[in-house]
Amino acid sequence: MRAPDFTLAAGPTMASGRTLDALGSQIVYHLDPVFLETFRRTTEKAAAFFRTTNDMLLLQGEGILALEGAGRSLVTPGMHVLNLVQGVYGKGMGSWLTAWGAVLHEIEVDYDDAVDPDAVDAYLAEHPEIELVTVVHSETPSGTISDCSRIGPIAHRHGALTLVDALSSIGGVPFEADEWQLDVCVSGGQKCLGGPVGATMVSVSPAAWERMLANPLAPRYSYVSLIDWKEGWLENGTFPFTPSVTDVVGLEAALDQMLEEGVDASIARHARSAAVTRAGVRAMGLSLWPRSEAISGNPITAVRVPEGIVHTQLSAHIRERYGVMLSTGQGAGNIIHIGHMGPTATGLYPIVGLTALGSGLRDLGVEVDLGAGIDAAMAEYGRTAG
Amino acid sequence: MRAPDFTLAAGPTMASGRTLDALGSQIVYHLDPVFLETFRRTTEKAAAFFRTTNDMLLLQGEGILALEGAGRSLVTPGMHVLNLVQGVYGKGMGSWLTAWGAVLHEIEVDYDDAVDPDAVDAYLAEHPEIELVTVVHSETPSGTISDCSRIGPIAHRHGALTLVDALSSIGGVPFEADEWQLDVCVSGGQKCLGGPVGATMVSVSPAAWERMLANPLAPRYSYVSLIDWKEGWLENGTFPFTPSVTDVVGLEAALDQMLEEGVDASIARHARSAAVTRAGVRAMGLSLWPRSEAISGNPITAVRVPEGIVHTQLSAHIRERYGVMLSTGQGAGNIIHIGHMGPTATGLYPIVGLTALGSGLRDLGVEVDLGAGIDAAMAEYGRTAG
Amino acid sequence: MRAPDFTLAAGPTMASGRTLDALGSQIVYHLDPVFLETFRRTTEKAAAFFRTTNDMLLLQGEGILALEGAGRSLVTPGMHVLNLVQGVYGKGMGSWLTAWGAVLHEIEVDYDDAVDPDAVDAYLAEHPEIELVTVVHSETPSGTISDCSRIGPIAHRHGALTLVDALSSIGGVPFEADEWQLDVCVSGGQKCLGGPVGATMVSVSPAAWERMLANPLAPRYSYVSLIDWKEGWLENGTFPFTPSVTDVVGLEAALDQMLEEGVDASIARHARSAAVTRAGVRAMGLSLWPRSEAISGNPITAVRVPEGIVHTQLSAHIRERYGVMLSTGQGAGNIIHIGHMGPTATGLYPIVGLTALGSGLRDLGVEVDLGAGIDAAMAEYGRTAG
Amino acid sequence: MRAPDFTLAAGPTMASGRTLDALGSQIVYHLDPVFLETFRRTTEKAAAFFRTTNDMLLLQGEGILALEGAGRSLVTPGMHVLNLVQGVYGKGMGSWLTAWGAVLHEIEVDYDDAVDPDAVDAYLAEHPEIELVTVVHSETPSGTISDCSRIGPIAHRHGALTLVDALSSIGGVPFEADEWQLDVCVSGGQKCLGGPVGATMVSVSPAAWERMLANPLAPRYSYVSLIDWKEGWLENGTFPFTPSVTDVVGLEAALDQMLEEGVDASIARHARSAAVTRAGVRAMGLSLWPRSEAISGNPITAVRVPEGIVHTQLSAHIRERYGVMLSTGQGAGNIIHIGHMGPTATGLYPIVGLTALGSGLRDLGVEVDLGAGIDAAMAEYGRTAG
Repeated sequence: MRAPDFTLAAGPTMASGRTLDALGSQIVYHLDPVFLETFRRTTEKAAAFFRTTNDMLLLQGEGILALEGAGRSLVTPGMHVLNLVQGVYGKGMGSWLTAWGAVLHEIEVDYDDAVDPDAVDAYLAEHPEIELVTVVHSETPSGTISDCSRIGPIAHRHGALTLVDALSSIGGVPFEADEWQLDVCVSGGQKCLGGPVGATMVSVSPAAWERMLANPLAPRYSYVSLIDWKEGWLENGTFPFTPSVTDVVGLEAALDQMLEEGVDASIARHARSAAVTRAGVRAMGLSLWPRSEAISGNPITAVRVPEGIVHTQLSAHIRERYGVMLSTGQGAGNIIHIGHMGPTATGLYPIVGLTALGSGLRDLGVEVDLGAGIDAAMAEYGRTAG
Repeated sequence: MRAPDFTLAAGPTMASGRTLDALGSQIVYHLDPVFLETFRRTTEKAAAFFRTTNDMLLLQGEGILALEGAGRSLVTPGMHVLNLVQGVYGKGMGSWLTAWGAVLHEIEVDYDDAVDPDAVDAYLAEHPEIELVTVVHSETPSGTISDCSRIGPIAHRHGALTLVDALSSIGGVPFEADEWQLDVCVSGGQKCLGGPVGATMVSVSPAAWERMLANPLAPRYSYVSLIDWKEGWLENGTFPFTPSVTDVVGLEAALDQMLEEGVDASIARHARSAAVTRAGVRAMGLSLWPRSEAISGNPITAVRVPEGIVHTQLSAHIRERYGVMLSTGQGAGNIIHIGHMGPTATGLYPIVGLTALGSGLRDLGVEVDLGAGIDAAMAEYGRTAG
Repeated sequence: MRAPDFTLAAGPTMASGRTLDALGSQIVYHLDPVFLETFRRTTEKAAAFFRTTNDMLLLQGEGILALEGAGRSLVTPGMHVLNLVQGVYGKGMGSWLTAWGAVLHEIEVDYDDAVDPDAVDAYLAEHPEIELVTVVHSETPSGTISDCSRIGPIAHRHGALTLVDALSSIGGVPFEADEWQLDVCVSGGQKCLGGPVGATMVSVSPAAWERMLANPLAPRYSYVSLIDWKEGWLENGTFPFTPSVTDVVGLEAALDQMLEEGVDASIARHARSAAVTRAGVRAMGLSLWPRSEAISGNPITAVRVPEGIVHTQLSAHIRERYGVMLSTGQGAGNIIHIGHMGPTATGLYPIVGLTALGSGLRDLGVEVDLGAGIDAAMAEYGRTAG
Repeated sequence: MRAPDFTLAAGPTMASGRTLDALGSQIVYHLDPVFLETFRRTTEKAAAFFRTTNDMLLLQGEGILALEGAGRSLVTPGMHVLNLVQGVYGKGMGSWLTAWGAVLHEIEVDYDDAVDPDAVDAYLAEHPEIELVTVVHSETPSGTISDCSRIGPIAHRHGALTLVDALSSIGGVPFEADEWQLDVCVSGGQKCLGGPVGATMVSVSPAAWERMLANPLAPRYSYVSLIDWKEGWLENGTFPFTPSVTDVVGLEAALDQMLEEGVDASIARHARSAAVTRAGVRAMGLSLWPRSEAISGNPITAVRVPEGIVHTQLSAHIRERYGVMLSTGQGAGNIIHIGHMGPTATGLYPIVGLTALGSGLRDLGVEVDLGAGIDAAMAEYGRTAG
């Protein structure tokens, strides 16, 4: 099969030419002074991206590496942890917490909904034994957002740390690691940055470090260890092992573009692409997966697949016939995504996604008003055009 | 500081234009049919590179990820393990084995020497309780090779499995995973393949899988898990998490070039570059680190740094003044490397390394006969030229 | 201003990743054996693209270089030449012919029309003194096609040679240099091949060579000389001057993709993109520039800009607001183009062009039924989908 | 045959990764606002590179295009022109001048020598009818430099214009278009800039424009016309034809690197590489082609090939056996070049060239003291190291 013309998925997403140039630049030795400087700069840029003055680590793998590393560093057997669940990623964190020996508390809502921060507040008030709150900021498969701006301060007020999966949120929706008092935050290159999969950023607050260092079970001398990177890179400028030179260089290029544009401008761009897409989806006669606009994320528009059609069948058909790769709900429900992240959260990319989706559904027998969808999308585009 | 003109280090090393093009190609979604096919093909090509019919996994990180994953999957507390130590990488494996609860046996030799397979045979005969032998095929920091062609069959004869760190050996020296009866072998992109750091190959024999699956402590639902990839990718064609698309695509390109050239031709090329380099080093009046040619690896020529000079000081000087990045012994001794791996194991790259090394030492007051070195190197080049 | 998200113009057009990799590959010396072989291969591939066994030259510049070189080589003062004019490119050839001293005959039609081959036949019958017919196969600015399949044989029957500007036609519409008895044909990289501007292909029949060699005014020792390349490259394997290494390498990559796909398949792909676009344009309530579908070219859909709006103002607005670069009529009329050439003659690229055009016109006050346009376009897409 | 490991030729030469990235960046439409801006900026940067406030044109082809265009614009039949000949490029200009109808005067010296500016002064004093002096600043095939710093002012003093082929000189040796009163200067991308072949820069003084515009035979409406670009681009911001987008973008990247480094720093870098190379050549027992160091150019070291060996045979052997592409004298004599231009005028690239040359000669039976050559070269390197 041919390579896709367009990847409008929930990440990895299409990268800019500049990011691709960086990924394709000559590989250097990891202890070359030029790479050491690159690594240092990239760390600083990641912190600016997170809006944090906490320590920033670059882990050498996909985001789940950092979530595992952070979780296993923070959790001790018998620790009470409140896990907020509004989708499969949140649910998966619960399984991990149990496996790691935590006493699991969960507030779970339907996967088209978002956890109410007030419920978190109430739960924590009733359970002062909870030491950690885990939350997914952007539930990628279901395209919903949780309100970390409130959850962070609430957790802190109740003396709990927070571990935030912000993989697909930063750069696409507002995110303030420090202002929101978030202790450990994880984000990746392959979402709103439009960069590589293999380098992940994680910020750690002093309180989180204290907890990790006191944890005898926290991974050390391990690929998933955060402490190794703290003691190696942060404290001594040495690497625990060879970092993924290519991915780090690519991540820096993606961060450069993000910071040159401005994180706020990037968020506005993602918001606009999402609004255009949502307007189109609705006018085509389709339903958004998230219960309300308020909890719909900017990076991914999750669309409910009409009954009788299976999401993966739909995306395979669209990929084959239209050359457009859309992603699907991955267990969260019968969902198809139009991703608008990184370079695809720009201009007419959403129209490509809407046309592919609408046409694909029509091919499978669903009545879709494609024309109305495009009209509505472009009307929304017009409302927000500069 | 400017980027290096030449990277002649112990890996990561310089990549070919074709590999760089692949690394810089547009990122696709990991579930795109094109990427699924890429992943499958790359797995097959890695098996051909290892010369194995065992299962092949592509892990999503640097080689140490696979060594940790394999070791923690194989080892159970109280298991007797024989670790062969002829350098810092072997030594590090011993620390890991102890941390994982193994009863550690070690045969250790000086770091400029190689473990004698007969000693392994004798030791295993005396210790029938040993269930696993761990060995580093190419001790990167000290540039020595162990004789896995004998160690593998010896271990099997005594009923022990083998775990082989072949990170910097395959493609540069002969390696036969199946013929040598090696159970778990790990290699990476950034050495003789001249490719990316972030994708690692590991082969697993049926006997090794049996052991891992029976091990309740083997990592599961973890970034370091081999079982997750077996149950996900090998058995169901699904990924446990998002693979590093860029690195996998780059690895395939590097494997393509290796297999088009032929692994044997690649080994011959590395052997020739090493011979040229060694001839030059000796004729300059310097000493090779390995005790004998027989145990000197083709991918890296390790040179003893003359007394009074510290290896890192020397490499920093050379990097700054000559634009050439050489690597150093990393704890194995006062060693500097001329790497000749991947595209740099070709033509006159060794001359660049020799000139940089000889001139750098001269600058620091060592008497070096640079001209004699180049003469000898090119004489050796001439002996083996087509 | 930001780089365009999409270039859907009349060429240069967007290139594939593979072509871009070739353009960005390391520059080699023009007398390197590898480049000599590249040049030879590219020449052969160009001939296959033209479907000719005539001599093929690669000239080192934009297409107009070859048109000038061929014309000045063929034309002698006082020679009677019939120039067919259905657009500005044809008109320009007439100016050149006059400047070069030819006795100019012209059959000229409106620029939304095509010259009738029967008229050519009649004219040549009446003017046996005509020795050369010049014709533009695809009038890029007005998006029309002339019927060279008939014009070539007609000219030959009357004893006249033909000089064909096939810059934007080959690969997008049927073209048969030999079957159609065309003597000198010129095509370029930046149109249906989706390649670089700076390398141009020109085929020359034995009869044309005979004429050129007999012409004392034919350029020699000149950048525009065809004879220099014949005597240098074709006869002696030497270059008259340094060829543009990068452009030639890029052209080969573009030709490789064309020939691997198959020229017929490429034409079908361009035809489908054009049909989709035309359906959309009409359903939006806009008018195509060409008088009939029969003379509309596949590579470029030329649309009549509604009165009161100037084409360049429209394209500037679309470029700025939608990030899409459309081209305009360049003197042929108040025309805007949706180009679908090379990689953009694929999948949903036409939808991007239609949306940009329709929305841009709406912004400027024109009533456009964008939704109906997209519906009609996708209905056409569906009719021809595999 | 494999691609060369190293191209150390007289241009085209190896390009930097940054230049290659630019050459491989997505192609845009030539009237895209981004490209118009690129073209404008590149023109300005070229002027800074030439150190001129005269008009700067970017011609769309190899340097010879600009030389032909300038010459044919300046020369009228019967005009007296003094052509300075110290090599084949200068000799070729004489042939052109004759063909264009000039009355040719020549001062010719052996091709290993340089024309004495005093002889020019004397000749012009005796021949006040001479209106134009043509001179090659850097005779690429023979590696010699002419003293344009004196020739320019001398010509002006005698009322003659100058046309300077500065293709391989600017950026490698001092060049001051304005200070030296040079009227028309031509340089290219593929020499000291380490860029593409297909874009050429030409500066034109007001006096030269006056002459060209008054010349009824000056090319107009032609690929070789300078006036077309003046009237199109300079005066109206329009292109006479589609420029070679890729080459222009690549040229800008090369100019950016040159100007960021500083032209003086670049010249010093080329001078050092040339000094290192010359020291090595001599110490190997070989002879430089130029009669003296004073007239040896920095960009190319021309070496006399020992008797009994033919230069092209030697370079073919070296290319095949050592993977290094050296160029040869192209009719100027039995000469082989070690080019050090652009990125190869850096660090240890000259050592690669010397080793290839010395070893290749040895293979062919010449006694060469390679070791002494490398020793001497590195001693020279040491003298000038920072």
